[in-house]
Amino acid sequence: MRRSFYGWGYEGEPIGTEEMGWFERTWADLFGVKAFDPAPMPADAEIALRPSRVAIPAPLTDFCTADRYERLLHTWGRSVHDIAKMIHRRDFSNPPDVVALPRDEAEVAAVLDWCGDKGYAAVPFGGGSSVTGGVNHTRDERYKGLVTIDLRHLNKVLEVDKVSQAARIQAGVLGPDMERQLKPTGLTMRFFLQAWEFSSLGGWIATRAAGHYATNYTQIDDHVESLRVVTPRGTVASHRWPTSGAGPNPDRMFLGSEGALGVITEAWVRLHKKPTFRLATTVRFGDYAKAVDAVRVISQAGLFPANARLLEREEARFTEAGDGTKDVLVLTFESGDHPLDAWMKRALEICGDFGGEWDRQALDDDESQKKGAAGNWRGKFLRGPYLRPHAIARGVMRDTMESCVTWDRYLDFQASVKARTLAAIREITGREGTCTVRFTHVYPDGPAPYFTWHALGDKSRLVEQFWAIKAAASEAMCDAGGTITHHHSLGPDHRRWYDKEVPPLFGEVIRAAKNTLDPKWVLNPGILLDR
Amino acid sequence: MRRSFYGWGYEGEPIGTEEMGWFERTWADLFGVKAFDPAPMPADAEIALRPSRVAIPAPLTDFCTADRYERLLHTWGRSVHDIAKMIHRRDFSNPPDVVALPRDEAEVAAVLDWCGDKGYAAVPFGGGSSVTGGVNHTRDERYKGLVTIDLRHLNKVLEVDKVSQAARIQAGVLGPDMERQLKPTGLTMRFFLQAWEFSSLGGWIATRAAGHYATNYTQIDDHVESLRVVTPRGTVASHRWPTSGAGPNPDRMFLGSEGALGVITEAWVRLHKKPTFRLATTVRFGDYAKAVDAVRVISQAGLFPANARLLEREEARFTEAGDGTKDVLVLTFESGDHPLDAWMKRALEICGDFGGEWDRQALDDDESQKKGAAGNWRGKFLRGPYLRPHAIARGVMRDTMESCVTWDRYLDFQASVKARTLAAIREITGREGTCTVRFTHVYPDGPAPYFTWHALGDKSRLVEQFWAIKAAASEAMCDAGGTITHHHSLGPDHRRWYDKEVPPLFGEVIRAAKNTLDPKWVLNPGILLDR
Repeated sequence: MRRSFYGWGYEGEPIGTEEMGWFERTWADLFGVKAFDPAPMPADAEIALRPSRVAIPAPLTDFCTADRYERLLHTWGRSVHDIAKMIHRRDFSNPPDVVALPRDEAEVAAVLDWCGDKGYAAVPFGGGSSVTGGVNHTRDERYKGLVTIDLRHLNKVLEVDKVSQAARIQAGVLGPDMERQLKPTGLTMRFFLQAWEFSSLGGWIATRAAGHYATNYTQIDDHVESLRVVTPRGTVASHRWPTSGAGPNPDRMFLGSEGALGVITEAWVRLHKKPTFRLATTVRFGDYAKAVDAVRVISQAGLFPANARLLEREEARFTEAGDGTKDVLVLTFESGDHPLDAWMKRALEICGDFGGEWDRQALDDDESQKKGAAGNWRGKFLRGPYLRPHAIARGVMRDTMESCVTWDRYLDFQASVKARTLAAIREITGREGTCTVRFTHVYPDGPAPYFTWHALGDKSRLVEQFWAIKAAASEAMCDAGGTITHHHSLGPDHRRWYDKEVPPLFGEVIRAAKNTLDPKWVLNPGILLDR
Repeated sequence: MRRSFYGWGYEGEPIGTEEMGWFERTWADLFGVKAFDPAPMPADAEIALRPSRVAIPAPLTDFCTADRYERLLHTWGRSVHDIAKMIHRRDFSNPPDVVALPRDEAEVAAVLDWCGDKGYAAVPFGGGSSVTGGVNHTRDERYKGLVTIDLRHLNKVLEVDKVSQAARIQAGVLGPDMERQLKPTGLTMRFFLQAWEFSSLGGWIATRAAGHYATNYTQIDDHVESLRVVTPRGTVASHRWPTSGAGPNPDRMFLGSEGALGVITEAWVRLHKKPTFRLATTVRFGDYAKAVDAVRVISQAGLFPANARLLEREEARFTEAGDGTKDVLVLTFESGDHPLDAWMKRALEICGDFGGEWDRQALDDDESQKKGAAGNWRGKFLRGPYLRPHAIARGVMRDTMESCVTWDRYLDFQASVKARTLAAIREITGREGTCTVRFTHVYPDGPAPYFTWHALGDKSRLVEQFWAIKAAASEAMCDAGGTITHHHSLGPDHRRWYDKEVPPLFGEVIRAAKNTLDPKWVLNPGILLDR
């Protein structure tokens, strides 16, 4: 079975009639339309693909290919506008000329050398799940060839230190394969982001992804002990220590480097004991501001829930986690060590202080996170990426954007972002849309709000409409004092806002690092900075 | 009252006879000597100070001085060999020519401009507590003038966000002054390192210091929301967010930059609620390996004790925290939110699993950390720096060195470091010394062991003897797989081991950052890298 070259998952995994029906009804209700006229999904045979413009030199033919399917698969990421281009325009106009599938670091280095010599651009590719254009190639005409370096063969858990609860893992491994390999050890990375099935450890590190835990160990940054990074100038290998105070941390320059400074090939990462204790419930609030306060106080209490996902009532209704009359907090504690009654009791006391009411029955049910409101939410969450192409085929844009902001600014921030996003949807599509919010991660000093918006556009202009809405929404986030991304990454899509965020002199430092590690600008030109 | 120009604390604070007597007896017992013949402390009048070689330009005379006392005070840090040079050699041979006391960022920038124009070197100075030479000036003769930038006037808490529990604070503030200013808010930084009284926020950030909490929020890195750094090229100001996923984190390049890339002037830092709940006890173990296992399991359990200081039995005896027959774990939980019984109960269960026995009475005593074994330890800890000059005056070297290493390597690591340090002491001084260890901070993947060694040397050769022992001990730490420093910083003293630690290409990145931000190499030449 091979990956769908335009969608999520594997070829020949159609969406079931019942599931498709549920979503169609939801979208129809949302926009007050009777029926949709979906564009057909793209087929290989319809696509005119530019012939590969480069010759693979003999020593690289073993692991480099100009195979048509591989080039199609590696042309776009999985953002709304990437998918819209594939579905509505059959646009595969800037494919890689070659896909490299290195089996070790020497082969990664050999590809980088080749690209440097020939003036080609190279894009590192993990799972290809980017929603920010992070695997798309440059259109800079100075580059005479485009090479994608797919790390799928660097997929081994190489070493597990059970005593220190850490493992040395190759960067190309995808989430499920990693967990499969770790399973016999009783340890887990538990880094269940939405794209878990089709994203890689190296991709998480390069983009500073955030995972399963809502508090404390949120970002991949917190999980990295050491890295190996193959740059065009050679390999950077940091030492494996829990931490060190010796100078600036080398790993932190590569966390968030988005493939522009080197290809991450391996990392020592911290693992967690598989949770054997779990308490979960949902708490309903009549007043959103009070619900926010409850989550804030919980996040400042040192209780560290695994999940503290506050769904604003509209979002709860849409995902069937609530009926739309109350805001819903999905609250979970997990431990591989001890019962969590005292932790949950205190968190619920705090919820009670702010008018929260909770589901007492769920607390007695070990599998409660798979049932009821939390279970409904979970199912929709995991199916989201599979439905995306089908939404887009119908002109339905469903995008998410996330930020991070301090608590003191949060209520104004969310009001402004929602208002401006809804106004942009109205103006650009001529129709009402939705914009709802939840917290994915919370810190003692502020939440990471995650906005979901829906708009119904014109299929022929969907790419442009999407961009106009996204730009307005992104502008709103930054104007209101948030960062452009908490964990979705920058890619080329967020560059214009990043350029306003990055302190100018630090931008110069990144440029100096780029010139030091990648003097011929082989890697991801246009990411983080322009040549 | 002004600071002692060679010791800890203020002038005219003599050590009491009783305290001095206790320490003298301890040292005498340790080395089997009858009495000491202490060298007298240095007096200003005895010191021949090189006249200032530079003229302060008119616009800077308001806040720059060539005052003799200021130049003496800023000549050395507070390491054993710094102090030995002052006490045994009256060596103040490389003082700053000028001490700048800027009152705002513009004055910091003006000093840097002046130094750049004239080819002078500048050393940022916070509290002056460095034990690694971090405030000492270069002897590089290319620099025709040496300027210390003392940030003591940048000492204000500028803004407190009580909702998000964070504050904007000027970098020159010392620990007690900061807490005094924060007190009315009910929030605290609680960053009680040993040098707390005479170290500054900016110093903590520049050196990646670690503070009060043994777990979770250990390093200053975890407390920084954003920074302002005045570099010779201009000011770098990062955004204040709980976190962001947008590119490499700018703050992480300055955390650990040790004044070589810019002068940190201000930071937004996370605060903690003043703890209102506290449980503390001490646990005794008959088997050190089992004690280590207990601490490891606690650190991996998600319990996050504020203190998990495991004192090896020899160290416990010396600090009167134990009688020397058992290893002692000082275990404390703190919270500003909730009672901690469940937390302590589980941690003690774990201790019990590994043969630990604890003080049940202490658990019922709110002030227990100030009493008994824990209290004895605390008293000695806080007085340590005050006693250092008096030890050195007697030829007693008492130094500490700290590292960080994963759990799987720890027992071998500590055995090797202790053996090689003791052997070095024996060889170099011709006498037995001590080398004991405790944990200051623990992580799920490993501890930060903190070694204390004592040796009795020849007063006339103390500097050389100290260096020979320190070099052997440092070499042992690195050979056994640890980092050269967990929180003491690099300074020039740790450069040779840092040069082996830093991945060479990342070293080139730091050099590129240096050339970008400080193209004339004004700031701290020799720190992190050579010109």
